[in-house]
Amino acid sequence: MAAPRYGRIAIIGVGLIGGSFALALKRAGACGEVVGVGRDPANLRIALERGAIDSSEPDAAAAVKNADLVLVSTPVAQFGKTFSSIAASLAPQALVMDAGSTKQDVVAAARAHLGGCLKQFVPAHPIAGAEHSGAAAARADLFDGKRVVLAPLAENPDALVRRAEEAWVACGARVFRMSAAEHDAVFAAVSHLPHLLAYALVHELSERGDAARLFGYAAGGFRDFTRIASSHPEMWRDICAANRVALLAEMDRYVSKLAAMRTLVERGDAAGLERVFADARAARNRWLAGEFSP
Amino acid sequence: MAAPRYGRIAIIGVGLIGGSFALALKRAGACGEVVGVGRDPANLRIALERGAIDSSEPDAAAAVKNADLVLVSTPVAQFGKTFSSIAASLAPQALVMDAGSTKQDVVAAARAHLGGCLKQFVPAHPIAGAEHSGAAAARADLFDGKRVVLAPLAENPDALVRRAEEAWVACGARVFRMSAAEHDAVFAAVSHLPHLLAYALVHELSERGDAARLFGYAAGGFRDFTRIASSHPEMWRDICAANRVALLAEMDRYVSKLAAMRTLVERGDAAGLERVFADARAARNRWLAGEFSP
Repeated sequence: MAAPRYGRIAIIGVGLIGGSFALALKRAGACGEVVGVGRDPANLRIALERGAIDSSEPDAAAAVKNADLVLVSTPVAQFGKTFSSIAASLAPQALVMDAGSTKQDVVAAARAHLGGCLKQFVPAHPIAGAEHSGAAAARADLFDGKRVVLAPLAENPDALVRRAEEAWVACGARVFRMSAAEHDAVFAAVSHLPHLLAYALVHELSERGDAARLFGYAAGGFRDFTRIASSHPEMWRDICAANRVALLAEMDRYVSKLAAMRTLVERGDAAGLERVFADARAARNRWLAGEFSP
Repeated sequence: MAAPRYGRIAIIGVGLIGGSFALALKRAGACGEVVGVGRDPANLRIALERGAIDSSEPDAAAAVKNADLVLVSTPVAQFGKTFSSIAASLAPQALVMDAGSTKQDVVAAARAHLGGCLKQFVPAHPIAGAEHSGAAAARADLFDGKRVVLAPLAENPDALVRRAEEAWVACGARVFRMSAAEHDAVFAAVSHLPHLLAYALVHELSERGDAARLFGYAAGGFRDFTRIASSHPEMWRDICAANRVALLAEMDRYVSKLAAMRTLVERGDAAGLERVFADARAARNRWLAGEFSP
């Protein structure tokens, strides 16, 4: 059997994403020993029991020593601190990646805190959220068929970016590349805005005097539309802060679209409304049929 | 075995709802012969093959003769014409119901076209949509555990409203009563507005030059948020027209909420955003736990 492509791996933040990354690489036989770093001993114990990690280590700097691959999968707000704590201990061959939902802020944190190791850091965003979190929710197949965006830095050696790509491919994912700014603009539109819209609807209804009655009649359409309003408040607070400019632009475009639709409703423009609905349905159905590719 | 509670039943419009209503009553042993009325011979043939109807009849007036129960489950826009065509042929004991998603417009059509039979009409809204339509999608269990709203008229005899209630209970549903105006206000908020919001997002993205790329990165959250944007354009055009006033009011409230959230994003008010997200998530989770009842 060939030697594993990644000998020692450090996972800083062994949650759904970090735990699944380790399990997926192990499934592929692509890694040797995995050490997990985290603040919650109970969660680390679950990660050990489930075989996602082989040992745990409270100190991130100690964990990354001699590691060939480091995944930083803590909440994005902790990235600065994490980068600072590991910068001096990283081996020169180590590939460092993150798994954050925004990229420009992560790149800024890396530039501020990774020092001479900046070129070893390849920003990554696996598009594989789930409603559950923690090591208990980690699964070896989480990334199967999923997309991963890499937003390489100008400083990254080509060979290192290819290693990053190979790691996610080994996890079962399809890998795409774009700049951090492009990434944040795309995800403001297709992910961050919808989350905000879903939170807004639930919050609006929940504040009313007849909220219980309104929710009492809400059905399957409402359930699916608002599913993402059950997402983690802290995570989405951080995403809104990190991607503020692009998100504001998307909110403004959306409100303009709503204003145009309001005019159609107000004027009783049945043909105009039907055209919007039919065009939207056709676009969504083409998307479901797999006709759109990044 | 007791005689069926509803001897002869006429279903005008044998689609998902009409077909499922017939199958559910048959499952309950609650009806005798079912005659189906429709414009599409192929659909009626499927309804016959699936046992939803026992015979088909092109003429609605002929179909309702001697019927004890008539369900009008055509698109709402056809209700006026349907009511006019059956008014003179209805038996005096016949219970007439509809299954429309809006109620004030249906009541207006009934008042305009049912003449002396108005008191026999009990407006009904089974809250059991589905992405599929037509007799082929009909299922005996479609209404199991689902809610049905009756919006009785002042003219309805109490005994007739109870018969209407019993029919839906026989179908497996839970029945609630409210006025047509209350119904339309509630569903503007929890159903009609979300549909419009989902259509708006998909349409907004589909019109952009980089639509293919945007859709290419859309994932599971987007899929669920926009599921209702695959709904029938004609049906939702009609709902927007029928419930115009309540829908406009809901759109305005929603845009105000978005403006407030925009301010939080713009100011970088992390604590304020987290509070909105956490409150919304808590409300949704209470709803999922069944804590809100009509």
